[in-house]
Amino acid sequence: MDNTLRRSLLFDFYGQLLTARQRDIYEMHFAQDLSLGEIGEQLEISRQAVYDIVKRALRIMEDFETKLELISKYNNQQRMFNQGENLILKLQNLIENEDTMVEQCRQITEILKWLEEIRSIG
Amino acid sequence: MDNTLRRSLLFDFYGQLLTARQRDIYEMHFAQDLSLGEIGEQLEISRQAVYDIVKRALRIMEDFETKLELISKYNNQQRMFNQGENLILKLQNLIENEDTMVEQCRQITEILKWLEEIRSIG
Repeated sequence: MDNTLRRSLLFDFYGQLLTARQRDIYEMHFAQDLSLGEIGEQLEISRQAVYDIVKRALRIMEDFETKLELISKYNNQQRMFNQGENLILKLQNLIENEDTMVEQCRQITEILKWLEEIRSIG
Repeated sequence: MDNTLRRSLLFDFYGQLLTARQRDIYEMHFAQDLSLGEIGEQLEISRQAVYDIVKRALRIMEDFETKLELISKYNNQQRMFNQGENLILKLQNLIENEDTMVEQCRQITEILKWLEEIRSIG
């Protein structure tokens, strides 16, 4: 997984465990893509102070990930969903050539919609 | 959800955030079903000390649940899996009366197996 994605998942899963200030600065840096210097200027603190807060926020969230492994479980689950999608698409393929299977095909469309939905909350 | 199930889910999701001692005592009380007095005797501490540790462990995990909502997400996901199972069973029902659908039925069995698997890691 690339660093950007990992930082974003860390924040999704553990952002609520940071202080409001850590959260704000983390987002300014990684989501709004402001430099440490720019954030320092806006908040009237030193570049070094901003750097320390970002580093500490990352460290806190990585420590929680070591214990709770939510990102790792999330990745496993996404892999499983992809596997399920393949199973369902294969079934769709087996059925769609049959003229009498209109209702069944509609049902498969329903299942694929459901899969998308559960994948997005996964 | 009943209290026993909730305590068990709290421990599954957040047990790693307790100290080893909190974890041990929590398990002795709720998994091995020992009374506070029995645990106190075994560990040579007062019944009150055991009670305080159990109460604190519960509080810590409930505080994390307030922020991370893993139990609440887990319950939503289980509901979604049940919904998916119904969709698939309905499709199975639509297909199993067709004589020519042997391969399709096998594929549905595969999908149901997959669903069981992902539900158990959910």
